[in-house]
Amino acid sequence: MLTPEENTRLTRVGPGTPMGTLMRRYWQPACLSSELPENDGAPLRVRLLGEDLIAFRDTEGKVGLVDAYCPHRRAPLFFARNEECGLRCVYHGWKFDSNGDCVDMPSEPAGTTLQAKVKLLAYPVVERGGVVWTYMGPKDAKPPEPDYEWTRAPATHRYVSKTFENCNFLQALEGGLDTSHSSFAHNNHMSNKAEPRQRDRAPKIDVERTDYGYYYVSTRDMGEEGKYVRVYQYVMPAQQMRANNVGWFGGKNEMPRADGHIWVPIDDTTTHVYNWMCSYDASVAFTPEWIEAREKAMGRGQDDLIPGTFRLKRNQTNDYEIDRARQKKEIYTGIVGVNTQDFALQEGMGSICDRSKEFLGSSDKAVVAMRRLLLEALEISAKGANPRGLDSETYRAVRPHDRIVPPGQDWRQLFEGELKTKW
Amino acid sequence: MLTPEENTRLTRVGPGTPMGTLMRRYWQPACLSSELPENDGAPLRVRLLGEDLIAFRDTEGKVGLVDAYCPHRRAPLFFARNEECGLRCVYHGWKFDSNGDCVDMPSEPAGTTLQAKVKLLAYPVVERGGVVWTYMGPKDAKPPEPDYEWTRAPATHRYVSKTFENCNFLQALEGGLDTSHSSFAHNNHMSNKAEPRQRDRAPKIDVERTDYGYYYVSTRDMGEEGKYVRVYQYVMPAQQMRANNVGWFGGKNEMPRADGHIWVPIDDTTTHVYNWMCSYDASVAFTPEWIEAREKAMGRGQDDLIPGTFRLKRNQTNDYEIDRARQKKEIYTGIVGVNTQDFALQEGMGSICDRSKEFLGSSDKAVVAMRRLLLEALEISAKGANPRGLDSETYRAVRPHDRIVPPGQDWRQLFEGELKTKW
Amino acid sequence: MLTPEENTRLTRVGPGTPMGTLMRRYWQPACLSSELPENDGAPLRVRLLGEDLIAFRDTEGKVGLVDAYCPHRRAPLFFARNEECGLRCVYHGWKFDSNGDCVDMPSEPAGTTLQAKVKLLAYPVVERGGVVWTYMGPKDAKPPEPDYEWTRAPATHRYVSKTFENCNFLQALEGGLDTSHSSFAHNNHMSNKAEPRQRDRAPKIDVERTDYGYYYVSTRDMGEEGKYVRVYQYVMPAQQMRANNVGWFGGKNEMPRADGHIWVPIDDTTTHVYNWMCSYDASVAFTPEWIEAREKAMGRGQDDLIPGTFRLKRNQTNDYEIDRARQKKEIYTGIVGVNTQDFALQEGMGSICDRSKEFLGSSDKAVVAMRRLLLEALEISAKGANPRGLDSETYRAVRPHDRIVPPGQDWRQLFEGELKTKW
Repeated sequence: MLTPEENTRLTRVGPGTPMGTLMRRYWQPACLSSELPENDGAPLRVRLLGEDLIAFRDTEGKVGLVDAYCPHRRAPLFFARNEECGLRCVYHGWKFDSNGDCVDMPSEPAGTTLQAKVKLLAYPVVERGGVVWTYMGPKDAKPPEPDYEWTRAPATHRYVSKTFENCNFLQALEGGLDTSHSSFAHNNHMSNKAEPRQRDRAPKIDVERTDYGYYYVSTRDMGEEGKYVRVYQYVMPAQQMRANNVGWFGGKNEMPRADGHIWVPIDDTTTHVYNWMCSYDASVAFTPEWIEAREKAMGRGQDDLIPGTFRLKRNQTNDYEIDRARQKKEIYTGIVGVNTQDFALQEGMGSICDRSKEFLGSSDKAVVAMRRLLLEALEISAKGANPRGLDSETYRAVRPHDRIVPPGQDWRQLFEGELKTKW
Repeated sequence: MLTPEENTRLTRVGPGTPMGTLMRRYWQPACLSSELPENDGAPLRVRLLGEDLIAFRDTEGKVGLVDAYCPHRRAPLFFARNEECGLRCVYHGWKFDSNGDCVDMPSEPAGTTLQAKVKLLAYPVVERGGVVWTYMGPKDAKPPEPDYEWTRAPATHRYVSKTFENCNFLQALEGGLDTSHSSFAHNNHMSNKAEPRQRDRAPKIDVERTDYGYYYVSTRDMGEEGKYVRVYQYVMPAQQMRANNVGWFGGKNEMPRADGHIWVPIDDTTTHVYNWMCSYDASVAFTPEWIEAREKAMGRGQDDLIPGTFRLKRNQTNDYEIDRARQKKEIYTGIVGVNTQDFALQEGMGSICDRSKEFLGSSDKAVVAMRRLLLEALEISAKGANPRGLDSETYRAVRPHDRIVPPGQDWRQLFEGELKTKW
Repeated sequence: MLTPEENTRLTRVGPGTPMGTLMRRYWQPACLSSELPENDGAPLRVRLLGEDLIAFRDTEGKVGLVDAYCPHRRAPLFFARNEECGLRCVYHGWKFDSNGDCVDMPSEPAGTTLQAKVKLLAYPVVERGGVVWTYMGPKDAKPPEPDYEWTRAPATHRYVSKTFENCNFLQALEGGLDTSHSSFAHNNHMSNKAEPRQRDRAPKIDVERTDYGYYYVSTRDMGEEGKYVRVYQYVMPAQQMRANNVGWFGGKNEMPRADGHIWVPIDDTTTHVYNWMCSYDASVAFTPEWIEAREKAMGRGQDDLIPGTFRLKRNQTNDYEIDRARQKKEIYTGIVGVNTQDFALQEGMGSICDRSKEFLGSSDKAVVAMRRLLLEALEISAKGANPRGLDSETYRAVRPHDRIVPPGQDWRQLFEGELKTKW
């Protein structure tokens, strides 16, 4: 449970808010690289932390991320011309490069001194792992560039997609750090009692703080087979990493890998979820067929999205196409698609979950730990100090892992070496 | 005319508001029984007095009405599993019965003490007359269960339907207590000058207060034939009862009966109207054909509703399909359907009518009397005393009546015995 | 740049606001005459300066403009009966004439004194030039009726249309007083370098204040050919007049004429634009074909509007159907239709442009001058004095002009006689 004030503090992300200020200390995904497919292509609307921005890939392939409005008379730069290494506003022809410098001002007399004075707000940008990242914080506090195993992996061993979620980021992040719900919300084969997460639905959870956030160990009793141990990583402010070595039906997963999400606030009540997958076995690359099958299982395959958007067809307006008959016997939620199930639950809490009315249990340990870290980071940040996870050295070698630990063995020994990155 | 403050006080119904608190002292319709057709069927969203709730019919047929959000982490219970006498949240499997008691908590270790502590908000429910009624007030002040002639009548002699109205309840209730407008808004045969309500369009109105609210007598001059006298009942807080013995074209109605509405606030700006009909002649049951014809005349037949909803197809978005040519000569409003006409006028006032700008006449006596009773009840209720109409003994024998009173006769004598219930 | 307070003061137009009060000192277009095509026809909804009104043409052809709600119980007069020189509310039959006097009250007893007391809010109306004008200010301060060359011109030499714009009026008016943007936003033939506005894209702007507002002279260098001089008129509070003698490709325009817009606030965030054209050469009348071709070029031809509305099909919801390929080589904005281009830029600034973030140049002189005049007029009006442009004598003879001024010649001599009306 949080006080209403704490809930507000943790969930509002606009300019000048405490959480908005904290979020701006970190590099954030702005869009997928694939959303800017060609040099001098169409500008792209990006809404991030409550700010309206325009992304564009210039003539040389460099990505700019700038204010959505021209500083002259506030005309919309979405309609601008992307040409010769700059965005040119179509109202009066003023042109700005990806640094926000004004490089042409044809509506003013030649030699105008205005051109040197006017600046377009522009945020620094880097592309890593198929994602365009930006830094929206104080200029003198820019941290090292984002650097994860999945951003370092070759494109053949990595996949990133993006989905739109119609609620505040925090309740989505909480779902991502909650291993317990997978025994219920994601039970898509109710007749399968062999699945580790069905054999013990009340996992023991142990959280260990780190310099980047925490990892937590979820332990499920498997009887004579031992224990199912799953280590999740939480990288501040809003990234989850989870392992997929053990299959849903028990045994080895068909494609052992690390998966993860980053929850990026569009504004206070909407979120973009970046979904990444990374194969760390150099001998096993992803195939397009496997990727599409996997995305479909998650509920975000090509046919699951409203064309031209990152929105699910199964959404709030149609109750996620819940099938009450299948819910009785086959799929615990009655809803098809793992992340669709998450969205139904998370969006269904309302735009911003009212945490002053919740009642937490021991299964919520990881959720509570994340909130505490964020609340502490707000205080640290307010004092001008550095919150955890800014420096890429703290998180660059991090990865999740899971396996079944036979009776009498210590998971720490078995996991040693597996919690460190291979790429 | 009301002051802006009085208007606000009478129209806001959310938790903690004066009118919201008063409304919660009475049993209120939550939904139709037919909206929960089967045991263990799909949960139903119910929004009532600004609160989001879920209704469900459990394995034994008992109806529960509970908070729309799980008390654990606020997941939406609309997606819950309705099974084995309880609702089970699909996020972590917590299960609650219709009393709100937690009966299973599978995500926590066996023997957890949490289960006994957590409660789901649950309101008491009774089913009467095809309606699910609930009581949302203080536990120790629950009044006797609702008990009307129409709830006691056999199902063969009773019919209840429900419609959605896109405005505050009060302006709708006012329309229901306003006999005068039927001479205008409901004049659907402009060439018919014989109709009693067309022969005298300025009825005399006399209001008599009672323990349940009031009845009022509307008297229209019929010349040599005498007077057309119509007695309406107002049962607090928001029920109207009207008689239909005398037909629209004069003479005996084809199906003498009592009709009524209850206006139930969904929230401040939307309302559910429960429409009931009751034949008190044991020898004359309603037939499905007659009911459908009657509902159609009111504008809410099966073909008049947007499928799967209680909303009229003829609504604000299409100006109620007003036909200006028919308005010239045939139908006074140009709009088809008696209650559609009411909706056009009531919804057309805006979400909440601004009564500080009105200018009342003698035809508005009943409207004024109702507002006074409600304002008094707000004061009575605020002092912790009981407002009128709580006890079913005050209203259980009440019914409306109308007939043509020949010259020289006293309506009170003729109506004696007719204003008391037969079922 | 404006302070946030100034920006608010200039853009809010509801009753009681400073700009709303100023706007109400002037006659304003309420609708097109053609929107009320027949006597006793259907009432028309008019929203003007944040007020909801109803216009109707009575039995004798006189137009009334009244409160949208009946003063009795606030029923919507849109559904009223327009009959026998008055609007009759269909709730209780109260009837009002175009002056707002109650002329019948059938729901009250004969001889009621109520009828003389109740008034329906009614604003004075005149029809001029195919437009229904109204005056919503203090009764004792009504200025002379609107009187422009284009309202005096014969119907054969005049055309008026209306479009809906989804933003505050001020950013639209600013676009209309900004000659500079036509070199960019309206460059629809990028290969045509001969066009005067392409030959010099940084016009010199000189503003001369007048009793009705100002005129401004925009001067573009045409090299050996001399200068292209264009005089715009700004008639307070929100009318622009511009000349079209010189064609887009240079040379004489095929139909020399004056054009103009009036921006009329529907409310703070939406605007009706009245678009007029006037041929002042008595020998050259407009033909329907020419008008339609011209309207189409502006982006508001019959096929450009959503049927039954004044809204463009190319609008915010479809990014004005921008064609990025055509934008590269042919049309500067990639958007078809001159006013569609304006709408894209003006609506794209957001509902109300944030002028505290702008950065003005010398091309914005006319915009700045208009804001100053309005800010001064707010002060003048607040002191109870008369702002500029109230008296039709100040503006009745005004018109715009443009032509190419050969080297060595003085534009003032050439323009003399052309800046005065011919009708």
